[in-house]
Amino acid sequence: MKDNMTAEKMMEYLYGLPNQFVECLKAEFTFMGNYKKRYKNIVVSGLGGSAIGGDILRSYAENKGNIPVIVNRSYEIPNFVDEKTLFFAVSYSGNTEETLSAYEKAKNKRADIICITSGGKLSLMAESDGYGVVKVPSGLVPRAAIGYLFCPMALILSELGIFPNLKSEIEETVQVLSELREEIKPDIVFPDNPARRLAESLMDSIPVIWGSIGGTETAALRFKAQINENAKSPAYYNVFPELNHNEVVGFAVPEDILSRVVIVIFEDKYDNPRIKKRIDITEDIVKNRVKNLLRIESRGESFLARLFSLIYLGDYASVYLAGRYSINPTPVGVIDYLKARLSEG
Amino acid sequence: MKDNMTAEKMMEYLYGLPNQFVECLKAEFTFMGNYKKRYKNIVVSGLGGSAIGGDILRSYAENKGNIPVIVNRSYEIPNFVDEKTLFFAVSYSGNTEETLSAYEKAKNKRADIICITSGGKLSLMAESDGYGVVKVPSGLVPRAAIGYLFCPMALILSELGIFPNLKSEIEETVQVLSELREEIKPDIVFPDNPARRLAESLMDSIPVIWGSIGGTETAALRFKAQINENAKSPAYYNVFPELNHNEVVGFAVPEDILSRVVIVIFEDKYDNPRIKKRIDITEDIVKNRVKNLLRIESRGESFLARLFSLIYLGDYASVYLAGRYSINPTPVGVIDYLKARLSEG
Repeated sequence: MKDNMTAEKMMEYLYGLPNQFVECLKAEFTFMGNYKKRYKNIVVSGLGGSAIGGDILRSYAENKGNIPVIVNRSYEIPNFVDEKTLFFAVSYSGNTEETLSAYEKAKNKRADIICITSGGKLSLMAESDGYGVVKVPSGLVPRAAIGYLFCPMALILSELGIFPNLKSEIEETVQVLSELREEIKPDIVFPDNPARRLAESLMDSIPVIWGSIGGTETAALRFKAQINENAKSPAYYNVFPELNHNEVVGFAVPEDILSRVVIVIFEDKYDNPRIKKRIDITEDIVKNRVKNLLRIESRGESFLARLFSLIYLGDYASVYLAGRYSINPTPVGVIDYLKARLSEG
Repeated sequence: MKDNMTAEKMMEYLYGLPNQFVECLKAEFTFMGNYKKRYKNIVVSGLGGSAIGGDILRSYAENKGNIPVIVNRSYEIPNFVDEKTLFFAVSYSGNTEETLSAYEKAKNKRADIICITSGGKLSLMAESDGYGVVKVPSGLVPRAAIGYLFCPMALILSELGIFPNLKSEIEETVQVLSELREEIKPDIVFPDNPARRLAESLMDSIPVIWGSIGGTETAALRFKAQINENAKSPAYYNVFPELNHNEVVGFAVPEDILSRVVIVIFEDKYDNPRIKKRIDITEDIVKNRVKNLLRIESRGESFLARLFSLIYLGDYASVYLAGRYSINPTPVGVIDYLKARLSEG
């Protein structure tokens, strides 16, 4: 089947995601002795696939943490960063210019920096400056390396006692993803699976992905970005309950555009009951104004497992969608072009 | 002209925005003596038009502050909230259920709470509990009260010495908005103005509003929400440079949908030069794939003035857009319906 052939590389990466978690669980972070401070805040500095792990930690911290996690998608750093900040500089390639800039500024502010990267300039600078570096395997595309880019931060924070339960949540996530991948991997004999069906629903539409604050929101953001990067097509996202205060009104006109919208709601058994009620009512309000509305429930028990169950389904669906468009999901020529233009004089 | 008649109320509110700032500048916050603590963080808890002021403060804090500002659009509160948190509970009506819930939880965590509201349950609870209440004029719709909902927080933080320059920035903002409103108010004799032209460009399209991190991002989010609430139509937003890592790839397919997209880029003379370069390159990449791409520059000198110059233009444009759709921008029946359904058993 043509879509399996062009998507082969990305499918291989996806199938390997639980293995990324397993490898990280075995890793030793030899620099931990330098990071025993009582931190005031945590900053995760990165872009795209290197930043999404920061959103997962931010969400987790808002739920169960004692200090804030701030995600920094910028050349700059928040002005409040200082020596009481634990600063993760995350760049899969090690050459992301925004993150290299932020690293320098964090160093000037004397933050405690840990780098997560497969190499590049970031690795060289950090080793030279004496900071902890988690060197992850190279050879993937950044968005496929979500396990390698997220788990080390989670395990470090677990080991430091800042978020002690993260390690066991990662262990459960391995289980949930290992089950899920058998259900959604490409199978020529049994071509129907939940990810493929989701992709089919999104074809030739305007995908709008909705999650819940403190719950599925990061999976919704991730799916939006994966549709952009893998299926090379537009997608948008928002979060309950905020969307009930503005976006839900925007379904009157123009009708021909609304008739192309497909809404995907990521939901979760542990959502606040008021949020669940909002989802039900919002579905009633908008379903007849749009092409389709789908509700997809997470699986698993811990926060991380539930979140990653949705991330994984969305990741696979975005690759199937690329296949339906006869697009190779793996290369992102536009981003390469942009980087080349940026490095010109 | 029909669109002026249906939009009359909202146009009146908009014209009055600089006056909201002036009134706030004259206000005295008699409770300040209770809030002299050295805070670890600031939380702004609210939804929709009551939350956007929090985003402005968050952006400002990342630039110039010494402590983080976290915006909380939820029933819950971040777990790290404690007695060293300055907690703003913002609800124009005073009856926003998420914010009432968050207020209770913040009270249990012994945060220092200040409420910004025109009345309702929040006002009664806060007065009874002995917290500071800023009672703003009632009678507007929340999104039109952005001056009343933002300025008191800014002035309080200015007076407390946390963000000392905010007061003078508000003063410059009054000037800039006062000039701008003469250029963009409805005028039957001279019907052409920048806000009306912007509205015209967005008609029957998929508006996608892009801002820059630490710069125009909040104005982009605001404009997206105002198109939803005033023009009752869909709109989406994103931020440079993050969008260069995913959204910029999503312009290959489907062509018939992309041909309806109108991109509006909010830019600013003080944007990082790398961001300016990214905007130029991104325009080159996407402009031939979409219906139209507009670049709109802020005016003014201080951060607040520049941000509000764009907010104001977008606010007016969203009301003109409602007029072009023959829609009355002021009522939001969908939100009233949602609230009624939520309060059923």
